[in-house]
Amino acid sequence: MSNVQSILAFNKEFVADKKYEAYVTDKFPQKKLAIVTCMDTRLIELLPKAMNLRNGDVKIIKNAGAIVSHPFGSVMRSVLVAIYELGAEEVMVIGHLGCGVASLNAERMINSMKEHGISRDVLNTIENSGIKLKDWLRGFNSEREGVIETVDIIKNHPLLPATVPVHGLVIESKTGELELVVDGTISD
Amino acid sequence: MSNVQSILAFNKEFVADKKYEAYVTDKFPQKKLAIVTCMDTRLIELLPKAMNLRNGDVKIIKNAGAIVSHPFGSVMRSVLVAIYELGAEEVMVIGHLGCGVASLNAERMINSMKEHGISRDVLNTIENSGIKLKDWLRGFNSEREGVIETVDIIKNHPLLPATVPVHGLVIESKTGELELVVDGTISD
Repeated sequence: MSNVQSILAFNKEFVADKKYEAYVTDKFPQKKLAIVTCMDTRLIELLPKAMNLRNGDVKIIKNAGAIVSHPFGSVMRSVLVAIYELGAEEVMVIGHLGCGVASLNAERMINSMKEHGISRDVLNTIENSGIKLKDWLRGFNSEREGVIETVDIIKNHPLLPATVPVHGLVIESKTGELELVVDGTISD
Repeated sequence: MSNVQSILAFNKEFVADKKYEAYVTDKFPQKKLAIVTCMDTRLIELLPKAMNLRNGDVKIIKNAGAIVSHPFGSVMRSVLVAIYELGAEEVMVIGHLGCGVASLNAERMINSMKEHGISRDVLNTIENSGIKLKDWLRGFNSEREGVIETVDIIKNHPLLPATVPVHGLVIESKTGELELVVDGTISD
């Protein structure tokens, strides 16, 4: 059975058995918190469990590396929607140890694209259109530096209210242990 | 107690009690699947539960509205990293009913920014720097249309391997019921 088929079959039973009843909530984050973290497979259940976050508690934004790659891209847009439309009053950036993006190698990835049938012509056209793939696909030096950089971009964003603290944390990918890297608490 | 303090206190016990042992896995998605979905609070536990996804199964990318706002932005970068670096062979875009982004109103949000102390000067400077806030903060007409559009952008991306199916689904935000909107299955 394909992923689509097996997921839809499971889902039919999930709904029929009313298993959703344990998770009913609304769209406003009860902890008034927005989290920017990584898409990593190890964080799907571990991150909410290790932080005691339940359905309805927070907004969670996820991408490769927990980064804001552009101040007017979709991650920052999501953070601002969480704040201005949904009542978030605090932001946490949570990187994780052993993050795949730390070891990202643009050249290896471009070679892999060629092996998957992306032609040299397509790659050249993209490059000649002003998109520098080696910059776009670069990683970062360390997970902590990545977190500090992302906290900086969010905290200094011209559209972020001055009252919103932006914290930076790193989570251990096996044990879920958190380390506070940037304490964004604003003293009164 | 602040969110930071209470989360760190809970986390200390979580690690000491070895509660992480139920979630140990590695960085490769066992279902070879990458999911693009929304940051909504209602999906934190509901989406994995309603799809039978466990720690380690998939890569999950999340933003406001489950959209790719730019083909060379961080969501598409994340999808490509999942495929070329981590072995994903399939993509699902999952919007959800009652998504806040569907009713996003750029003017209301800009007014809210002013109320939160963002000055008219800052807003003018951004606008005069070529960033059209009303475009950046616009929503979409319906959740299904949003999903179809995002599937299109991913499926037609010049760097996506032709062999990768891109499906589109919508999830009901209370019951978790899934509807297949775009069946991206590639027939042999």
